[in-house]
Amino acid sequence: MTTSLRCYDCGRTATLEDGKRCVCGEPLWFDVDAANFEWPDGDTAEGMWRYRDVLPVSSGPGVAPGGTPLHRAEGLDADVGCRLSVKVEGQNPTGSFKDRGTAVGVGYVLEAGTDWIGTVSHGNMALSTSAYAAAAGLDCAVFVPTDTPAERLELMARHEPHIFRVEGHYGQLYADTLALETDVRFVNSDTPLRVAGQKTVAYEILEAFAPDVPDAIALPVSSGGQASGVWKALRELETAGLIDDPPRLYVVQAAACDPIATAFREGRDEVTPVDGGDTIAVSIANSDPPSGTRTLAAVRDTGGAAVSVTDDETRDAMALLATTAGLSVEPSSAVALAGVRALARDGEIDADEEVVTILTGSGYKERFDTDVDARTRTIALEALADEVESVVDR
Amino acid sequence: MTTSLRCYDCGRTATLEDGKRCVCGEPLWFDVDAANFEWPDGDTAEGMWRYRDVLPVSSGPGVAPGGTPLHRAEGLDADVGCRLSVKVEGQNPTGSFKDRGTAVGVGYVLEAGTDWIGTVSHGNMALSTSAYAAAAGLDCAVFVPTDTPAERLELMARHEPHIFRVEGHYGQLYADTLALETDVRFVNSDTPLRVAGQKTVAYEILEAFAPDVPDAIALPVSSGGQASGVWKALRELETAGLIDDPPRLYVVQAAACDPIATAFREGRDEVTPVDGGDTIAVSIANSDPPSGTRTLAAVRDTGGAAVSVTDDETRDAMALLATTAGLSVEPSSAVALAGVRALARDGEIDADEEVVTILTGSGYKERFDTDVDARTRTIALEALADEVESVVDR
Ligand SMILES: [Zn+2]
Ligand SMILES: [Zn+2]
Repeated sequence: MTTSLRCYDCGRTATLEDGKRCVCGEPLWFDVDAANFEWPDGDTAEGMWRYRDVLPVSSGPGVAPGGTPLHRAEGLDADVGCRLSVKVEGQNPTGSFKDRGTAVGVGYVLEAGTDWIGTVSHGNMALSTSAYAAAAGLDCAVFVPTDTPAERLELMARHEPHIFRVEGHYGQLYADTLALETDVRFVNSDTPLRVAGQKTVAYEILEAFAPDVPDAIALPVSSGGQASGVWKALRELETAGLIDDPPRLYVVQAAACDPIATAFREGRDEVTPVDGGDTIAVSIANSDPPSGTRTLAAVRDTGGAAVSVTDDETRDAMALLATTAGLSVEPSSAVALAGVRALARDGEIDADEEVVTILTGSGYKERFDTDVDARTRTIALEALADEVESVVDR
Repeated sequence: MTTSLRCYDCGRTATLEDGKRCVCGEPLWFDVDAANFEWPDGDTAEGMWRYRDVLPVSSGPGVAPGGTPLHRAEGLDADVGCRLSVKVEGQNPTGSFKDRGTAVGVGYVLEAGTDWIGTVSHGNMALSTSAYAAAAGLDCAVFVPTDTPAERLELMARHEPHIFRVEGHYGQLYADTLALETDVRFVNSDTPLRVAGQKTVAYEILEAFAPDVPDAIALPVSSGGQASGVWKALRELETAGLIDDPPRLYVVQAAACDPIATAFREGRDEVTPVDGGDTIAVSIANSDPPSGTRTLAAVRDTGGAAVSVTDDETRDAMALLATTAGLSVEPSSAVALAGVRALARDGEIDADEEVVTILTGSGYKERFDTDVDARTRTIALEALADEVESVVDR
């Protein structure tokens, strides 16, 4: 198990126990020697563990995350404006992409022989960490903002973590937990262990396309942990000689809370906090993303962009997925598709380009405000034949 | 595409267009020549389509169902009383096992070149059919009882089917839809197309164990469509020479509504309707299962049993999965694990036997009554360190 970390920016090294950030202030990630990595043809490890040679741990408890469908969604090409594939991360065990990083974090704590894992989250990551901690027999503490909906808390509570609703600034809470002197190993969203797990989604996408490479990968961005993981994967695969020309990375935010897109638009090198407003994309409403600057570096390095979309564009994308591809995703996932649509409309993505959009979470874990009565009709069994024909003949 | 059907009981043949049941009254299934079937090593078709050689259609729209995790849940062995594996069907695209049969039904309608698909369901099957019809560009009509919870209707409505809430007897509605003269192809839960799709879960389980065979497979039962599919798979795999000694089939019902278990207990050859009471396992509360008698034949043929469990036993099994395996399932899925536990306690299953329990649906699509305030604590950010240590040190 490697514990050597490196800063993407200044190149300094550190160990996992040294601290969570580089002395330059930027986040760290694992220093992986991928030069000899090859696609694991014929490997029978479950899910993401087929990439264990480039991970800090080689297995974890519970159902293996990953191995999610990469679906060529031809039916959406004309509407979205490219050759679209979707990576359906909502089919992970707890319904979101977060299970990948969680599995590495929990696997690490198990190997280290300690008892506690913790995280700070609006929902998906807290649920994921609670579930995998349960599977591992670890104690778990999750910290959520006080406005986290009760329905999300209920899903977590089934796995019996210690749930703390914290009054105070979310970004500060994120940093404070990482600074604690405690036996709890915090695997927050841009920490090295989590980024290591999150990178496996890009390994899966690139392996599925090999020896070809998609033109672009689009994903929603919040803390920047997942975007960092995808970038890390691309760099490792270049080192391994498995890709020459990496896909452009497009990261998408909700316009109401878009610090990374703002910095990109303004040509800045650093992401600074914004005053975030309300958005339906609650899972990615992060006004002070800890890996924002690293994400900016990722999109510049790959020739991509950071953009934002309105909630109306997000709603349209969500409806398009549900009614044309049969996929229900959470708003924060639909943001990425809305971004691709906007980029294609603006000529940044061409119609003949292969674009993979990462759909980070299932929509079935949430309820939307729908007037169910307006969407259904109540009939008597005796009227069945007439009612069916009245609809079919229309 | 084969359209030849056969009755499991009297052996008569029919075509898919002849009608939905045999003249003897029993349900039909596809007449498949599996003599030359071999495990499709190296096949790269997605999900369940690797078994297309024994299916009435070879592909379908949308994300391929199947390929779900088969997880060896060692942590539960001691508590459940056997060597337990779980087949996590909640990781299918719409969160339940129903996607397998739906994909075959929708694929069939697409190949036939007609426009409409329909189903009768309490929830999972209506959601699944709505989603896959959307992916296929088909019109879809779903018929649900009037007491179907609004939250289930909302999930379906996202995919924009025609939703009919029908006042009247559910069993009669099921039969009446199949008897309609209409352009709508009804793929109800024990119809031949659906049973063909549902059998693929057993193909996956048996292929994962090959050349070994598990001692038993346990699953919840409602209409008997899924149990019929599993039995069909076992018979086909015997014909193919891939298994000698098939696993025993255990089907489990909620005690409040257990017509199949009652008939089994009383040594009868036929399942007759019961007056079903309330149970938390709403998805399987079927008082008049159309494939009940076929299911009885399946468990007798394989040396298994039909049993029932109380809601308290189901709740215990659900909590055990969530807190020990990190898996949230719907109550109707937990019923199967509760059944295995009861069978092990009664000596019907031995501690050293390999038992696969099919967890049919995700628990994350439902809300349970949880006192969230009692399961969380609200703290101020300033108190973070003290609060963490107070829990860790305990
Ligand atoms: Zn640095
Ligand atoms: Zn017959």
